[in-house]
Amino acid sequence: MRDHGESAMYHDQQLTIGSMLHAGLTAAPEQRIVHSDVVDMSYAQFGARVHRLASALAALGLGQGAVVAVMDYDSHRYLECFFAVPMLGATLHTINVRLSPEQVLFTITHAEDDAILVHEDFLPLVMPLLPRITRPVRLIVLTDRGATVPEGFTGEYEGLLAAGDAGHSFPDLAETTRATLFYTTGTTGDPKGVSYSHRQLVLHSLAVIACFAPVPGRGGFKRDDVYMPLTPLFHVHGWGFPLIATMLGVRQVYPGRYDPVRILALIAKHGVTFSHCVPTILAMVLQAPGSEAVDLSRWKVIIGGSALPEGLARAAMARGIDIHAGYGMSETCPVMTIADMDATQGATGDTTATRIATGKPIPLMQVRVVAPDMTDVPHDGVTTGEVVGRAPWLTDGYVRDEAGTAALWAGGWLHTGDVGTMAPDGTLRLTDRLKDVIKSGGEWISSLALESVVSAVPGVAEAAAVGMPDARWGERPVILVVAKPGAEVEAAAHAAVAAAIAAGRLTKWAAPERVLTVTAIPKTSVGKIDKKAIRAALAAGHFA
Amino acid sequence: MRDHGESAMYHDQQLTIGSMLHAGLTAAPEQRIVHSDVVDMSYAQFGARVHRLASALAALGLGQGAVVAVMDYDSHRYLECFFAVPMLGATLHTINVRLSPEQVLFTITHAEDDAILVHEDFLPLVMPLLPRITRPVRLIVLTDRGATVPEGFTGEYEGLLAAGDAGHSFPDLAETTRATLFYTTGTTGDPKGVSYSHRQLVLHSLAVIACFAPVPGRGGFKRDDVYMPLTPLFHVHGWGFPLIATMLGVRQVYPGRYDPVRILALIAKHGVTFSHCVPTILAMVLQAPGSEAVDLSRWKVIIGGSALPEGLARAAMARGIDIHAGYGMSETCPVMTIADMDATQGATGDTTATRIATGKPIPLMQVRVVAPDMTDVPHDGVTTGEVVGRAPWLTDGYVRDEAGTAALWAGGWLHTGDVGTMAPDGTLRLTDRLKDVIKSGGEWISSLALESVVSAVPGVAEAAAVGMPDARWGERPVILVVAKPGAEVEAAAHAAVAAAIAAGRLTKWAAPERVLTVTAIPKTSVGKIDKKAIRAALAAGHFA
Repeated sequence: MRDHGESAMYHDQQLTIGSMLHAGLTAAPEQRIVHSDVVDMSYAQFGARVHRLASALAALGLGQGAVVAVMDYDSHRYLECFFAVPMLGATLHTINVRLSPEQVLFTITHAEDDAILVHEDFLPLVMPLLPRITRPVRLIVLTDRGATVPEGFTGEYEGLLAAGDAGHSFPDLAETTRATLFYTTGTTGDPKGVSYSHRQLVLHSLAVIACFAPVPGRGGFKRDDVYMPLTPLFHVHGWGFPLIATMLGVRQVYPGRYDPVRILALIAKHGVTFSHCVPTILAMVLQAPGSEAVDLSRWKVIIGGSALPEGLARAAMARGIDIHAGYGMSETCPVMTIADMDATQGATGDTTATRIATGKPIPLMQVRVVAPDMTDVPHDGVTTGEVVGRAPWLTDGYVRDEAGTAALWAGGWLHTGDVGTMAPDGTLRLTDRLKDVIKSGGEWISSLALESVVSAVPGVAEAAAVGMPDARWGERPVILVVAKPGAEVEAAAHAAVAAAIAAGRLTKWAAPERVLTVTAIPKTSVGKIDKKAIRAALAAGHFA
Repeated sequence: MRDHGESAMYHDQQLTIGSMLHAGLTAAPEQRIVHSDVVDMSYAQFGARVHRLASALAALGLGQGAVVAVMDYDSHRYLECFFAVPMLGATLHTINVRLSPEQVLFTITHAEDDAILVHEDFLPLVMPLLPRITRPVRLIVLTDRGATVPEGFTGEYEGLLAAGDAGHSFPDLAETTRATLFYTTGTTGDPKGVSYSHRQLVLHSLAVIACFAPVPGRGGFKRDDVYMPLTPLFHVHGWGFPLIATMLGVRQVYPGRYDPVRILALIAKHGVTFSHCVPTILAMVLQAPGSEAVDLSRWKVIIGGSALPEGLARAAMARGIDIHAGYGMSETCPVMTIADMDATQGATGDTTATRIATGKPIPLMQVRVVAPDMTDVPHDGVTTGEVVGRAPWLTDGYVRDEAGTAALWAGGWLHTGDVGTMAPDGTLRLTDRLKDVIKSGGEWISSLALESVVSAVPGVAEAAAVGMPDARWGERPVILVVAKPGAEVEAAAHAAVAAAIAAGRLTKWAAPERVLTVTAIPKTSVGKIDKKAIRAALAAGHFA
């Protein structure tokens, strides 16, 4: 390649978390950040607190390369940590406080935390673990009530800030510097560490803005929105919106511990217009006492974490909520696709199907649906394959886990482990988890689609479909059903699948090898069907 | 810094022009791109043409490291070159067709063009230059009329595309690969080459979106806008909006050669809602025959290139146009600041002052106003200094011009050469060009502010203020005035400045050393006051 004679590079401006904070402080110094009924401050005050926090942490020796963990509800203090810790060149470890104590200990140890900032409510979880943390670790307590500083703790957050320097000077950082770290759990094995760099977080934020902000009318995300997260900030950076809202100078409301009644009160009091959550949280809010009295007609909600059930979508729409589904995972920062928000703005007719669909990739996100040999499946909305992706913000891999990382990035694309179809217009539809799909005679059969058909059979209370090893076909479908009292459903289940095959809704390979009536279907601790346990039990002949 | 044990990087997704095209093609394959009355095609068709063009250029040996120049009006073909050329790893040289023939020859030679794509209208400009181009150069003619291919030309654009491959495969590129190159001219010296990488263009696009898209209501730039550039695409990539519109999948209308009557017809026919231009073009459109008959009440216009005059802003607003000023320069990709679009949306009362102001920096753009020692001036809206900036998309420097580059980036900040003030809320206001500011006794006196005061004196037809060397004060102001017939204005000019000083509108140092009545004020070839010539003439005693 020939030399174009460019001059030496006189600047090399990096994509950093600090540049996102600077943008918000410049755009809207008077804008407000509220925490429940505890704090109501301006962005300028917030910026000063970020500097004070950083100064306090630096004074404790927590600088470049350090790992600073946080255990807190969704608070203004957590948001301060989102900026101050990475801006120091340290890594923010967002601890999932819902993990078991042993898992929390594992993540603290594996992350090599140098400090842990703990809300007082989580002291009962942390204190018993302290004797088993072998590295030296600084402990700082977070409280709104002036609680006493526990034995062995370095101090209390507000006290440290008060002694900090609002003019603290941050180091210049390479954009590849690690900014965040958290752990994702599967059904087996230890939690896996997922990390993101400054660059990845800035680019994810810009791409999400490029998806949400250009939505016509009141939809999407605009600078006059009032933002309140309803996703724990330890779940993939609260899906990135706290960073985005801050960069754009948007008014923010932090709810603290999730309490549906208080959430409703905050929505009413502050005129909250934009939130994101899992289906369970939205259902809790809609069903909370006094919910009907609160006007939710200006509230936009993005649902992620699991599929948006049609019933919940309709219930939300009945309250005037502008609801859409999104899709992503811990390893993708997380946003990959969003339901078509443009199409539902001002639309007449029923928009439910559009709102609950997986939708299209956000800008700069490449999504493919591929066969095992990594060739694209036809974009016919029918042929299934694994969903794989590329974008400049996907995680580089799992921390200290070469094998897991190699599997995640096999063939140079991030493997989601989800199975789906691609429509001719590029719309993605998810059909199953890869580990649950039934691979029979070269065909992929969605276990979820089989369960959907059998669940609709009168007398069936519940159904679970799994693939069982088959010498000739690789795998063949087996369906467990729980019958309602007195019902006999096995023959009807076979007939229902046959009818769906005849109607072209299922491939002919979907006809189950066996339908077995059982008294209960094995579940995981969080209530999901445990297909791994079902396959093991079937292999051991437990249902025979 | 300690080793965090990250796994090896399994992917390294780069920020490329190709990823922006991919985003648009994925988001909106059926969206339309229109060129005047010549072409109306879908994004999918556009994408195929980009691939065909790239294939044709590659077949001519124009690949990584090549320089491909374009001379065209604002057309769909130019947009195709915006993508195909950089995606090949080649540099797109956007030739300013308004330069003098000698300057055009200089830029072709200095850029080391390997190919030039020339619209037939510019053949009379190019043909006489060909014998003086010493490097081998491929020539391709662009026409809508099936013109014959001139002697020595390789072919005609549409013919090459017809033979091209719609499935052309592009190389993977590093994001630092040079994508574009153009030349900027000052009042003296040769044109200077300014280049941008893929990364810089992607980041500029994302930051402009993060500024324009979150504007509430119908303001800013949304996916349902209809976009038509009214800035030549050779002026800093048509300010970047062709790339942005394509990435977002927005409907685009290309106007070809600027003809106010046809521009109005295109606005009416296609419902154009978003454009950008210099003040002159907007004035032409507003004053064109039949203009009043066209509904412009859904048209949003961004004005750049020079300050937005209040009178033009009011005339535009009277037609219902949502008009705002922007500020930037060739070296800044270009957008630095934009007037506050949020504040004017749905505002009651007169918003003119807000619309014509320089406004605030776009996200990730840092702007400072500094004294010569690079310290910030007070943010009081009064103290002046030079405007300097940093952002991840500013040019690295001038091509093969170490001295110019070093001056541009002195102290690690890009020097705009503009003088301005910073208000307490971070709003920038420009007051003068640095080279025209009068530096007296440590104070900076705006030559424009002095001219504004003296121009308002009855009997003054025109005024020009310059700084002349002074042994004691460094410089002292001298004002040239052209008096209306029969008027005697020198004493009144002195009195007017004294009154402005007394009122606190000018510093006391602004009192002019001399006011000289002249018959004419020296101008440049484009009609601007030539202060360099005035200073030289004064020094030589020509006005004495």
